[in-house]
Amino acid sequence: MGSGSGRGSLLVVSAHAGDFVWRAGGAIALAAERGDRATVVCLSFGERGESAKAWREGRTLDEIKEIRRAEAQNAAAALGAEVRFLDAGDYPLVESHELVDRLVRIYRELTPTVVLTHTLADPYNGDHPAAARMALQARVLAQAIGYDAPGEPLGAPPVFFFEPHQPEQCDFRPDVLLDITSVFDRKRKAMECLPAQQHMWDYYTDLAKRRGVQLKRNAGPNLGLPHSTMGEAFVRLYPQVTGELA
Amino acid sequence: MGSGSGRGSLLVVSAHAGDFVWRAGGAIALAAERGDRATVVCLSFGERGESAKAWREGRTLDEIKEIRRAEAQNAAAALGAEVRFLDAGDYPLVESHELVDRLVRIYRELTPTVVLTHTLADPYNGDHPAAARMALQARVLAQAIGYDAPGEPLGAPPVFFFEPHQPEQCDFRPDVLLDITSVFDRKRKAMECLPAQQHMWDYYTDLAKRRGVQLKRNAGPNLGLPHSTMGEAFVRLYPQVTGELA
Amino acid sequence: MGSGSGRGSLLVVSAHAGDFVWRAGGAIALAAERGDRATVVCLSFGERGESAKAWREGRTLDEIKEIRRAEAQNAAAALGAEVRFLDAGDYPLVESHELVDRLVRIYRELTPTVVLTHTLADPYNGDHPAAARMALQARVLAQAIGYDAPGEPLGAPPVFFFEPHQPEQCDFRPDVLLDITSVFDRKRKAMECLPAQQHMWDYYTDLAKRRGVQLKRNAGPNLGLPHSTMGEAFVRLYPQVTGELA
Amino acid sequence: MGSGSGRGSLLVVSAHAGDFVWRAGGAIALAAERGDRATVVCLSFGERGESAKAWREGRTLDEIKEIRRAEAQNAAAALGAEVRFLDAGDYPLVESHELVDRLVRIYRELTPTVVLTHTLADPYNGDHPAAARMALQARVLAQAIGYDAPGEPLGAPPVFFFEPHQPEQCDFRPDVLLDITSVFDRKRKAMECLPAQQHMWDYYTDLAKRRGVQLKRNAGPNLGLPHSTMGEAFVRLYPQVTGELA
Amino acid sequence: MGSGSGRGSLLVVSAHAGDFVWRAGGAIALAAERGDRATVVCLSFGERGESAKAWREGRTLDEIKEIRRAEAQNAAAALGAEVRFLDAGDYPLVESHELVDRLVRIYRELTPTVVLTHTLADPYNGDHPAAARMALQARVLAQAIGYDAPGEPLGAPPVFFFEPHQPEQCDFRPDVLLDITSVFDRKRKAMECLPAQQHMWDYYTDLAKRRGVQLKRNAGPNLGLPHSTMGEAFVRLYPQVTGELA
Amino acid sequence: MGSGSGRGSLLVVSAHAGDFVWRAGGAIALAAERGDRATVVCLSFGERGESAKAWREGRTLDEIKEIRRAEAQNAAAALGAEVRFLDAGDYPLVESHELVDRLVRIYRELTPTVVLTHTLADPYNGDHPAAARMALQARVLAQAIGYDAPGEPLGAPPVFFFEPHQPEQCDFRPDVLLDITSVFDRKRKAMECLPAQQHMWDYYTDLAKRRGVQLKRNAGPNLGLPHSTMGEAFVRLYPQVTGELA
Repeated sequence: MGSGSGRGSLLVVSAHAGDFVWRAGGAIALAAERGDRATVVCLSFGERGESAKAWREGRTLDEIKEIRRAEAQNAAAALGAEVRFLDAGDYPLVESHELVDRLVRIYRELTPTVVLTHTLADPYNGDHPAAARMALQARVLAQAIGYDAPGEPLGAPPVFFFEPHQPEQCDFRPDVLLDITSVFDRKRKAMECLPAQQHMWDYYTDLAKRRGVQLKRNAGPNLGLPHSTMGEAFVRLYPQVTGELA
Repeated sequence: MGSGSGRGSLLVVSAHAGDFVWRAGGAIALAAERGDRATVVCLSFGERGESAKAWREGRTLDEIKEIRRAEAQNAAAALGAEVRFLDAGDYPLVESHELVDRLVRIYRELTPTVVLTHTLADPYNGDHPAAARMALQARVLAQAIGYDAPGEPLGAPPVFFFEPHQPEQCDFRPDVLLDITSVFDRKRKAMECLPAQQHMWDYYTDLAKRRGVQLKRNAGPNLGLPHSTMGEAFVRLYPQVTGELA
Repeated sequence: MGSGSGRGSLLVVSAHAGDFVWRAGGAIALAAERGDRATVVCLSFGERGESAKAWREGRTLDEIKEIRRAEAQNAAAALGAEVRFLDAGDYPLVESHELVDRLVRIYRELTPTVVLTHTLADPYNGDHPAAARMALQARVLAQAIGYDAPGEPLGAPPVFFFEPHQPEQCDFRPDVLLDITSVFDRKRKAMECLPAQQHMWDYYTDLAKRRGVQLKRNAGPNLGLPHSTMGEAFVRLYPQVTGELA
Repeated sequence: MGSGSGRGSLLVVSAHAGDFVWRAGGAIALAAERGDRATVVCLSFGERGESAKAWREGRTLDEIKEIRRAEAQNAAAALGAEVRFLDAGDYPLVESHELVDRLVRIYRELTPTVVLTHTLADPYNGDHPAAARMALQARVLAQAIGYDAPGEPLGAPPVFFFEPHQPEQCDFRPDVLLDITSVFDRKRKAMECLPAQQHMWDYYTDLAKRRGVQLKRNAGPNLGLPHSTMGEAFVRLYPQVTGELA
Repeated sequence: MGSGSGRGSLLVVSAHAGDFVWRAGGAIALAAERGDRATVVCLSFGERGESAKAWREGRTLDEIKEIRRAEAQNAAAALGAEVRFLDAGDYPLVESHELVDRLVRIYRELTPTVVLTHTLADPYNGDHPAAARMALQARVLAQAIGYDAPGEPLGAPPVFFFEPHQPEQCDFRPDVLLDITSVFDRKRKAMECLPAQQHMWDYYTDLAKRRGVQLKRNAGPNLGLPHSTMGEAFVRLYPQVTGELA
Repeated sequence: MGSGSGRGSLLVVSAHAGDFVWRAGGAIALAAERGDRATVVCLSFGERGESAKAWREGRTLDEIKEIRRAEAQNAAAALGAEVRFLDAGDYPLVESHELVDRLVRIYRELTPTVVLTHTLADPYNGDHPAAARMALQARVLAQAIGYDAPGEPLGAPPVFFFEPHQPEQCDFRPDVLLDITSVFDRKRKAMECLPAQQHMWDYYTDLAKRRGVQLKRNAGPNLGLPHSTMGEAFVRLYPQVTGELA
């Protein structure tokens, strides 16, 4: 029961400033291309945990934040999305009721029809599950009429976990393969907005090919997908609601 | 990536003559309503394991088979489906390469775009997993150009497991909730074609209500589903392939 | 190794004021009928998250709490149980050491022989797992002689999780089916003490029938259970200790 | 809902002649002590896979079978049970419909109220899961009035898996701990009927102690279990049906 | 507790003629390089299921077998391994006691110190789990002194599952990452011996890079692994036995 | 990729003062014997939750802490390890960013090559998972150059969970069996430094035998392990990185 054309609202809750590019850039670009609103919320800049190069170059904390902010804004623009920074700090990203409340208010404001976030398990990075837990808690709270925040109670938008760096170790068993072929060049451009992680550009291009190969193997008959199909993998948290099995 | 209108082919592989009605009647009626071809393959009549009333009435094995055949034909007709009987025997349904080969030929003939069958675990009924294993094996064999059977190699149609009688004990964790409200009256009529299991009519009507309530809770915003929404639950075996997250 | 007659103490730890009725009303009524002490601890009134009707009617927070308190007291009385309200707030129910400590003191006071609480997973309601985590932590703390609270160290009472609204999504795989036929009328009366959730009365009556059907299918030989058997489903946290396999 | 005193019938389906002693000797002795009928069915003598000592001593296949038969009869007698040998061969124990049919007839004859068998997973010994699969299939077939075998349709007796040699590798997570203190001397005597596996006597005595310690830790308040409590661990396949949570 | 240098024996049991190259080529080349004996057993040639190109070119079954045999021999030679073909047929690979017995005799002959085979789950290819089940059953049978086959009873060599094409769908959660950097050029050469599957050459080169990146992230301190580290992933069936945690 | 001889650094993070002895004494003694540095960090003394005997004797909190400190120091010395006490309190062990930060600094100081800690699940003792969560979080934080603490960023040392008291209930499925035969006498001596828990000495000696028997069954060919092999079991959190399958 998709959003049709241009009435949807995609919300991506990301622990650090770069995550949304590698892991969900295709989904974001597709939404934007359809005319849906696409908003990325970065809980932190990834200033401590994911900016090793800048630290080695001797940058200050504030400088690093600004670099990461600019890069993420460029990447979001390349994908057609708005980005917001909550600057809650990373390594560790500390869960708090205040931060959850800020997310509730964003849910009430944006009334997302689809939510993307990190997996609930990630033994390599505790900030990722922390972000996911807060994104999920805020989604439930925003649904309650009794929760004291502006706006109407939220519906129950579906939630998808995007792919972590080491999927099997994070219990990530893809149950949705998204065809991002038509927007892959935008995803690549967005990745190239993050120059400090240049080794990731090819890594995530290879991953998109790999998921594309799997997508074709699961695509059923008569689809005529091209050899160069590119994909992104997701895990769905809640049951899919549909009017047709397909 | 649904079949659109009227070009699909639904194949239901059922261990016994009645299973498809209780567990997938809504999905079948929806497919037929859309103009898709819908075919049910009953591997057995359920003549030994699911015809207690007839045995208590002193019927012979052949009589029971004929009763079950007629009932299943009526139920399939009520749903808009064709039904085929392989008469392979039940309790136990014995897995064999011959039976798998017959299924391969049916796959090649019908070129299904969607396949429904039993769960792979069912500690209450060994015939159900046996049917599922054969349905899955035949689907893979039918894809191989080197497999010696008439017709073209099959695509890779998605497979859904329908709901067993005691879902939690069968590791059935629904990941698709299908809205069958518009065809529920046809499912009810099909159920009423099976008079020996009258206690099941209300049981599966209640279940459809229950799955309908859950469907609404997972349906996200803006859908305006009616209070009387009816649902069927399924588990998807392979990842969903899609062009839009929803 | 049951409590025999009238020497047991049942403790139910519930996140909100209504949960214990829908999910454990039969178990509570059975305990009371046996002469066991039955105590329900409501960590909150469910004033924000489970009182949508009252909010839509324009009630204040305090009014809603009083409505929920009165309803829960009536329902508990109908079941034969005492109810206590810790008024810790809901949506979110915030975990704290103070709240756990209050629970420890209740454990030490009541010395429960059986404990019921929510499942540890519930993607629809974060308060439920929060209540369960605190109930479990307090139970362990109450067992330590070195924990500074009045009373003797607790034994190790068995813990059962009661059934959530969408059991499969909460990893709820029933391993105990409780026959509540003899007290179902009391459970129904208790449900009717909660007028704002009238749609739940039939929903949970249907569920009791469904669990009753499953109970009969698992009941083994010679039990002669009536057609109208009603059941409640539970998951056992710790291994059952017994002197006889049955 | 136990069998009370002396009206039950315990059926143990064992792949090899010795398994029932190490893994379920306590449960068998308890049943016999209560006056229940206890029957052990050994599908094979374990003549190839579990008789290394006899093979090293140069015995013939027939000699080994006779040795194993005599030992198992002595052990069963020490426990108070009857033992039957189906002599179906081991290493591998080959699953067949004939063998399952023999089991169906035994179910119909003995009308067990409790069934014990191996776990469904055992990467160290394929005969164990094969025996379990056949025991479970026969139990379901025996319940069908339409299955052609003498006797009345079986009820649905509960099934317990007994403890394998390396429990964690067999996904054996105990959910029932059985107090066998009162009959442990009989279990020890039965073990001593198997002189070729003398190193197992102490091993399984230590295991009984270990399970006894765990039993006490899970036994709840007020039980006054002695320091020397001995236990056996089991996994329950179907939900427990009960009239009281305990 | 590795084989040290040149005293080990690696046995790879592969369903089809090409599997061992893509999935375990690095492990095989490493073993050969160490001086261990390396033997690949191909249960079939993959003549029906994995030779689509040849079928489309109109080859006969016998021609296809010969093509596949030659390719596999070349690939094995490139890796430094011997290869044996049991020609048991594929699509489906039918499990039989005769085939298991042939494997037992190979185990007794080669006395492998390490065994590699397919995963036990693969919803895309039923031959893979069938091969794995037979490889595992034969390994256990070969350990029994009473099993009637030439040679001494086998020890208990560790077993590793190699990586399937869609790992997450096959419950493949890597717990061993093998550094194949030093032999990757040999693996690439072996892949190039399979010209009909040229699209796989880059696919599995990319996978080796990907597993190499993960290997470095899990490699701990002080290892100084090069940027171009290549890896293969495996799942261990039995617990690792070791004299040192590392 | 072990540490070879004398260059490694083993870090054990333990919730209470005694845990490291029962659960990892053999691993610690082996490391010390190899010349590796071995350090135990006790987050608390176990003064409330694991000192029942002292409380029953009427000791004060401070006295109990001193008793436990002395015992743990003696035990650590017997094993060849240094021990540090963070005195963070137990029952409950409260997770805090301050405590995690102290652990980060210890990681940066000691640069461990191997880390041991509790399992992430333990329904009998909430302090154990709390300790494990902090040990894991600190390990990840210590790897980030941007984390503000003295020392160089940590590598990624492998992590092993040691065996809890009721392993199956804690989802502890051993995947590493460590041969501790050569140092078992040192482990026994260390256990005997804890006189208040004398019943544990034999319990954990029996467990070491049991794990030793399993170790031999998984040890493969040609190892010639003695009858009296003693073992400790561990679960590996991250994939093993190796240059040789064995």
